[in-house]
Amino acid sequence: MSAASFEYTNGGAAAAFGTPSVSGRLASVYSQVQTSRIDHALPLPSVVRNPFKIVDGPPSSAAGNPDEIAKLFPNLFGQPPAMLVPNGADSLRSDLKLKIGVVLSGGQAPGGHNVISGIFDYLQDRTKGSILYGFKGGPAGIMKCKYIELTSDYIYPYRNQGGFDMICSGRDKIETPEQFKQAEETAAKLDLDGLVVIGGDDSNTNACLLAENFRGKKLKTRVIGCPKTIDGDLKCKEVPTSFGFDTACKIYAEMIGNVMIDARSTGKYYHFVRLMGRAASHITLECALQTHPNITIIGEEVAAKKQTLKNVTDYMVDVICKRAELGYNYGVILIPEGLIDFIPEVQQLIAELNEILAHDIVDENGLWKKKLTEQSLKLFDFLPPAIQEQLMLERDPHGNVQVAKIETEKMLIQMVETELEKRKQEGSYIGHFKGQSHFFGYEGRCGLPTNFDASYCYALGYAAGALLHSGKTGLISSVGNLAAPVEEWTVGGTALTSLMDVERRHGKFKPVIKKAMVELDGAPFKKFASMRKDWALKNCYISPGPIQFVGAASNAVNHTLLLELGAQS
Amino acid sequence: MSAASFEYTNGGAAAAFGTPSVSGRLASVYSQVQTSRIDHALPLPSVVRNPFKIVDGPPSSAAGNPDEIAKLFPNLFGQPPAMLVPNGADSLRSDLKLKIGVVLSGGQAPGGHNVISGIFDYLQDRTKGSILYGFKGGPAGIMKCKYIELTSDYIYPYRNQGGFDMICSGRDKIETPEQFKQAEETAAKLDLDGLVVIGGDDSNTNACLLAENFRGKKLKTRVIGCPKTIDGDLKCKEVPTSFGFDTACKIYAEMIGNVMIDARSTGKYYHFVRLMGRAASHITLECALQTHPNITIIGEEVAAKKQTLKNVTDYMVDVICKRAELGYNYGVILIPEGLIDFIPEVQQLIAELNEILAHDIVDENGLWKKKLTEQSLKLFDFLPPAIQEQLMLERDPHGNVQVAKIETEKMLIQMVETELEKRKQEGSYIGHFKGQSHFFGYEGRCGLPTNFDASYCYALGYAAGALLHSGKTGLISSVGNLAAPVEEWTVGGTALTSLMDVERRHGKFKPVIKKAMVELDGAPFKKFASMRKDWALKNCYISPGPIQFVGAASNAVNHTLLLELGAQS
Repeated sequence: MSAASFEYTNGGAAAAFGTPSVSGRLASVYSQVQTSRIDHALPLPSVVRNPFKIVDGPPSSAAGNPDEIAKLFPNLFGQPPAMLVPNGADSLRSDLKLKIGVVLSGGQAPGGHNVISGIFDYLQDRTKGSILYGFKGGPAGIMKCKYIELTSDYIYPYRNQGGFDMICSGRDKIETPEQFKQAEETAAKLDLDGLVVIGGDDSNTNACLLAENFRGKKLKTRVIGCPKTIDGDLKCKEVPTSFGFDTACKIYAEMIGNVMIDARSTGKYYHFVRLMGRAASHITLECALQTHPNITIIGEEVAAKKQTLKNVTDYMVDVICKRAELGYNYGVILIPEGLIDFIPEVQQLIAELNEILAHDIVDENGLWKKKLTEQSLKLFDFLPPAIQEQLMLERDPHGNVQVAKIETEKMLIQMVETELEKRKQEGSYIGHFKGQSHFFGYEGRCGLPTNFDASYCYALGYAAGALLHSGKTGLISSVGNLAAPVEEWTVGGTALTSLMDVERRHGKFKPVIKKAMVELDGAPFKKFASMRKDWALKNCYISPGPIQFVGAASNAVNHTLLLELGAQS
Repeated sequence: MSAASFEYTNGGAAAAFGTPSVSGRLASVYSQVQTSRIDHALPLPSVVRNPFKIVDGPPSSAAGNPDEIAKLFPNLFGQPPAMLVPNGADSLRSDLKLKIGVVLSGGQAPGGHNVISGIFDYLQDRTKGSILYGFKGGPAGIMKCKYIELTSDYIYPYRNQGGFDMICSGRDKIETPEQFKQAEETAAKLDLDGLVVIGGDDSNTNACLLAENFRGKKLKTRVIGCPKTIDGDLKCKEVPTSFGFDTACKIYAEMIGNVMIDARSTGKYYHFVRLMGRAASHITLECALQTHPNITIIGEEVAAKKQTLKNVTDYMVDVICKRAELGYNYGVILIPEGLIDFIPEVQQLIAELNEILAHDIVDENGLWKKKLTEQSLKLFDFLPPAIQEQLMLERDPHGNVQVAKIETEKMLIQMVETELEKRKQEGSYIGHFKGQSHFFGYEGRCGLPTNFDASYCYALGYAAGALLHSGKTGLISSVGNLAAPVEEWTVGGTALTSLMDVERRHGKFKPVIKKAMVELDGAPFKKFASMRKDWALKNCYISPGPIQFVGAASNAVNHTLLLELGAQS
């Protein structure tokens, strides 16, 4: 009956740490739920619970331009996928003592700590006496050789916990020859057998470049990637999802569901909810599938249909007018963070503004506006005054207009308001409109991982350990068959080069893992598209409620994944 | 393993409803968590599970000015509290068939549906054949006689669910003679034996006026109040807490905890979190006790110490500077929604601005500013330009400055930024500062009620049923001993007049239930005050995680209540 929280004191490892930013969760006070999660026993795929061997598949190619990828990765191109399969006895030497490093790269995603736990436990279970180093603060930690040795005591309080604070993360990249050199020095200094890079598309591309570099220089250090991003845009057939997506979407969906019930109870607000996801709209789509909002904007659709801001506004206003006729003057609208980036005319306007602001005087009488093209001028005049002002005044250090600072949800509220006012005067709208804006972002990146993310990450880490144990490099940890119970999940690795294409930048080919965007002919979008008309006018709201860790609801997997796997219709 | 949600179809009651705004949750699709909650068996205090009688206590007085309260409530003043106690046999007639109305008044709070379920189940259990009417859209539903008959089938899908959408709510008041007349007509038309008003301080005051009015006119309709508000500012010895506070705080604390882990993982943001609660800062205080933020502003303390906006800013900046010296350039800061209202100098400035804007021309050169008093001018110049502009431009229909529209968290970020810049130039600050703003409000009002709120509300409703059954009026449903298991909770009613004082308005005495503010010598604030220095510089963050409905963590009760009951130290 008491809310008293237990004091977790981890005496042993206290002396090991330097900078306060990675001081560890020593003597942390944990909530009851946090505490209950620490000792949550994680299931493992049966293939890694029993003796296994690693089987190679056929040689791989690339996602595009295989010839260029082959040139960029002469040592790694064409590597086969690796798959763990049951075996009479373990085929890998258990007397090896490995030295492995691990690094977190980029934005937080729930489950990162479990990947590290998975690697650690693999090494403990299969290569007793191995050492795991955690590089601090992202790839910069590799270059500056800032690390801690991860011990059982140190890792313990982070098990099944959100955040990246065990070793923290960073956005630096290892890409110049000098930086590669620093990485080599660290690998040599620590005598590293392997390195696990936990990150998104960019980080995994760089992981592969590092693997290629080490291999090219005949260094023993192998590199394995792990798919991390709440945005859900790093995925392919072999890597069905990136970790963190499941948890983040469920946290946002909890909030959206609550706001929906509020909207229906109050009956007088339209809630405009902007959701994280600058490049792809997977989060927005998944949240829509979980909650059934009245209006959902998917950036990829806006781009494919070459919609303008006016089109988007009109779509919203049309639905709002129809709902008003039905007596509903409330609703919930989901918008992806990156919406503006998907609208070509906005990009054009921004480019023109940057040009004008750099070279011309912006006069009070608005004569400067004559320098805009007709289309851009029309768009500019269509924007609410506050947004116009923001575009003109807020610039980054290079003097560029800051699109990222525009609060899309507030802008849309103003545009919808203006358009509704017009329709009211025309007599085609009879309701009343009041917008409320929300942005759900930071709340979802560091929540306690769901049972799915906790297990998935643990398996990813365990897989990474197995791949390094068997001497693999340049692979991304791959756990499959995710619609089945954890016991039946498949475990292996996929050649990072097989995920790659090239982009031409500054006259050179650069390898990239293309972001997986929402596919308009994919199952998740098609399901959404088949239902959205109903959702618009009827109120089909679903409130997913808070993430549960125990009971039937605790093992639900997100719709996107199940639909893509064909496990849901 | 599937996220598929079950389709709840409630065929029977479909025909009963008219307006789309209260169309009921018919054929609603429910999430797994929602579904699991519908059939959650609610415990009841043992006193109502067994035969009981109702015992009156000693006559009551008033919270202040008893003579005036006695004049305002000649028929009800001095009523004793009522307490249910075990009895050999039930003392109330079970052959009575009652006609009872229920109304939700004011803002949403998790658990409202359970109060209604509690009333309904009491009537079913103890006065078979009784009828429960739900007035639609708040007190206006009483005046306009808009209602539905609540049946078992209709109530079922709302059990343990958030929101007020079963009958919706409203903010109208029944206070003029004409309005009282309308209420009388409705009571007569429906032959009402009783009415339960579920609301906050104002609504319960009005409930008592209605009870007095009915009694004065010798009508049979009795009125019982129920304490509802997430703000937690309706409470006294006999009514230890208002429902919804527990759930709302836990939802906000989940988000705050997630943001904390993000802050620590990222290491570069100060998150300014504004929390609902315009009058009192209970929510902010409770969230602080649950999560241990670096800085928490309690409105009542700001008012008591007559702090200025500059004082508040300086306090924040001092902590931020000290943290920077320790290497921490991140943190989490909680701010109550009503902060600005607690600062006397801001009130003064607003008053002067309203005066000036009403009568003078605001010239571009700022000559109008000379009309401000010295103190107000100083404050105005201290405000960030965006806020100055907002104060000058955004007015309500009466031409008044709109304080409510000021996003306090954004204003404080700007003020802190400016002050830090100054200190940087003086050499007393060496860090880097980046603020992120959040407002947690609508997300918490309609969440699925916690086990505590679910049980508490059910007991409140059951108690209201018992009080009406025994012919009581002018009482507020009172459930006590809340630190003990539900079985041991006490059940009764407290004279609403005993909670009242008077305020002088327009030369007349008006009865009011004074809002319970955060008491600076109360246990919750004292606990907070004893720990906040530690929280400021060390990172003692606690992440409460999502509300759990099963397991040990599911029965935790909020700190404020336990501390006030002396059940936690």
